[in-house]
Amino acid sequence: MSIRRIEQTLKQFNKIGYTEDGINRLAYTENERKAKEIFKEICEGENLSVRMDYAGNMIARREGIDPTLPPVSTGSHLDTVINGGEYDGTVGVVTAIELIRRLNEQQIQTKHPVEIICFTAEESSRFGVSTIGSKCMAGKLEQHNVQNVKDKCDISLKDAFSQVGLNLSQAGDACRENETIKAFFEVHIEQGPVLEREQLDIGVATGIAAPTRLKVTVQGKASHSGTTPMNLRKDAFLGASEIGLAVEQAAMIEAQKGTVATVGDCTVAPGVMNVVPEQAEMKIDIRSINMASKQTVMKHIKDTIKYVESKRELLVHSELLTNDKPILLEQEVTSSISQTCEQLGVSYRKMPSGAGHDAMHMAKLCPTGLIFIPCRDGLSHHKDEFASFEAIGIGCDVLEKEVLKWAVPKKAEAISK
Amino acid sequence: MSIRRIEQTLKQFNKIGYTEDGINRLAYTENERKAKEIFKEICEGENLSVRMDYAGNMIARREGIDPTLPPVSTGSHLDTVINGGEYDGTVGVVTAIELIRRLNEQQIQTKHPVEIICFTAEESSRFGVSTIGSKCMAGKLEQHNVQNVKDKCDISLKDAFSQVGLNLSQAGDACRENETIKAFFEVHIEQGPVLEREQLDIGVATGIAAPTRLKVTVQGKASHSGTTPMNLRKDAFLGASEIGLAVEQAAMIEAQKGTVATVGDCTVAPGVMNVVPEQAEMKIDIRSINMASKQTVMKHIKDTIKYVESKRELLVHSELLTNDKPILLEQEVTSSISQTCEQLGVSYRKMPSGAGHDAMHMAKLCPTGLIFIPCRDGLSHHKDEFASFEAIGIGCDVLEKEVLKWAVPKKAEAISK
Repeated sequence: MSIRRIEQTLKQFNKIGYTEDGINRLAYTENERKAKEIFKEICEGENLSVRMDYAGNMIARREGIDPTLPPVSTGSHLDTVINGGEYDGTVGVVTAIELIRRLNEQQIQTKHPVEIICFTAEESSRFGVSTIGSKCMAGKLEQHNVQNVKDKCDISLKDAFSQVGLNLSQAGDACRENETIKAFFEVHIEQGPVLEREQLDIGVATGIAAPTRLKVTVQGKASHSGTTPMNLRKDAFLGASEIGLAVEQAAMIEAQKGTVATVGDCTVAPGVMNVVPEQAEMKIDIRSINMASKQTVMKHIKDTIKYVESKRELLVHSELLTNDKPILLEQEVTSSISQTCEQLGVSYRKMPSGAGHDAMHMAKLCPTGLIFIPCRDGLSHHKDEFASFEAIGIGCDVLEKEVLKWAVPKKAEAISK
Repeated sequence: MSIRRIEQTLKQFNKIGYTEDGINRLAYTENERKAKEIFKEICEGENLSVRMDYAGNMIARREGIDPTLPPVSTGSHLDTVINGGEYDGTVGVVTAIELIRRLNEQQIQTKHPVEIICFTAEESSRFGVSTIGSKCMAGKLEQHNVQNVKDKCDISLKDAFSQVGLNLSQAGDACRENETIKAFFEVHIEQGPVLEREQLDIGVATGIAAPTRLKVTVQGKASHSGTTPMNLRKDAFLGASEIGLAVEQAAMIEAQKGTVATVGDCTVAPGVMNVVPEQAEMKIDIRSINMASKQTVMKHIKDTIKYVESKRELLVHSELLTNDKPILLEQEVTSSISQTCEQLGVSYRKMPSGAGHDAMHMAKLCPTGLIFIPCRDGLSHHKDEFASFEAIGIGCDVLEKEVLKWAVPKKAEAISK
């Protein structure tokens, strides 16, 4: 039975790196390598040919009737954050394996080959660089950006590559040309609360939001909390509070466009009971699949900064850390997945992806679909991360039907009997 | 010349504990002991009789015509914070010495004895307990509150007492009875910006504000900054921002009563770019010489907390750390000092003291006056703390005239010639 098989496969992977605090399969570690080894064994057991590319991505191929045609690909990643959950990434690999098993079971032959891609190093937790595997495949990894990165134990990415038998200087050779893949689909937990709250089975990502990130430093003046009258203060924390509330307000105005904005941190100096705060440093994260909407939010924040500077006699310095362009997924794909949901009687909605995924790089290479399944309480990157096997099963049904649309099936006659 | 003499005396003290980062004469250290030793030498040089009480306060007495009358006292402290300034406390001791020198110079005899009190351990920097010396003198030190306090090097207050030849269990014997002191006056730098900004020579303290302190913990829910829609967030930092701005607003409304309120610190957890803040912890300090006004501010803050809890679905816990009663100084004294200023043609204003001082405990024993002189930029507890010798000189003029009013002078005839 499919649900039990999904459960078993998920467990096979999650034995690796399991701890009471969560799953630990960091990028380019022995644990990630072991998980990829299991992936290889399973896929070979299903008669797929498996190879590892120069970046460490695993690619398992189920041959098509016409081997010269580009494959239809699906997959996700097996690496996790520190103390991560059992579903983020792994669900995309498990549904891909389940898809292959169903095709094998039903002896379905497809015109195009079908491929599982198990990306490496999707999470940024070890080296501060995310989606290394898919970046390499899309030809987007810039060597100079990763030459000197190190993990917390001072191991360089270069050495980490060596330790699993790879060569960082060759990682670029993992790049695949446009049109060498027919289409790519990734099943992933939503990592947000929307599907659960709206009681929907599937989220069809319309795009993948890219972050614009700011570090905002509010400079006030330290003074005695008892002896400085209210009107003679230059309180950095109060300035930061006003800017923080403006960040929220700006995102609220743009909420219909799926835009969100967050002050993730605010540190106050000197941070003691009896001194008016001299400095407050905020980390601001703005995300949207609509670049113009992000700019609108930025403008609102900058206007507020000017207002706060003048009203409170503060100096505010804002540093743009990241200003990435969002990825819009092709309407051909989102419409096709939506139609598949309708055909299967599965409830769905279109929605932006607020988090980054390997799919965003694959979108550069081929038509790409990102299929969300609900997870409990929107929780992710945590040992309590959870998605039901029913939800994963529905994700697999949608994936199967959708992949077959693109791979063009031909039901094989039963060979024996 | 008086100004040069003041400068020289200040320098004598500030050689002790001088570092490039500021003055270090922490309570009950060898440095404080040395400074008190210098105090003793100077006072004995001026023919005062000097004794140390059981708490470590130094008391130097200039005999009066009637030795049975209670003395008029003046003084402050010689201990500093870590990396403190040259003026906080020391100015009050230096002006007291200068007063004695002027009396001696002019051969003025007073009916009442005149006393300099050099309090010990006014700053809380070493043991977290402030005004130990004056508390003991006013009979306000509770032994059980200090039995177990230790400094950063794990030295107990008890051991620190022993190291300078004192016995903590006897500290209570430093207590003086009501009416054994005629009046007490302390000259101190303002430690705030008001006098400088208003270009006034003297501040006459009407009372000493006492802090009400709160720790407010805002509990929200951590969620992904990219995938959680704005309307499904429980952002603890935004709650804290609203509460912080309400703290300011409440104090602004009460500003005419000299009330101030400050959020001195706010820490955010987990405090990372891509997670909606789960928790924010704030330190709030409310000060006023008007207890009712502090309560009004508290009510405003509590109302805001309720509003924020309900609007944002947050849980807010507030813990009352301190709720001290302010000290009002007797109008007889403030009027008298004001009159003295007028008689001397010195500009002044009445004002609350936002910071605590030894004078607040002396007010329990006798009519007490607290005389502020301006300091640069309101800066205090810092190596750049500064008050001009002109300002200190004016403080000394006011002190001299005021003390003589209470001590009842009789100009001695010239003895020689």
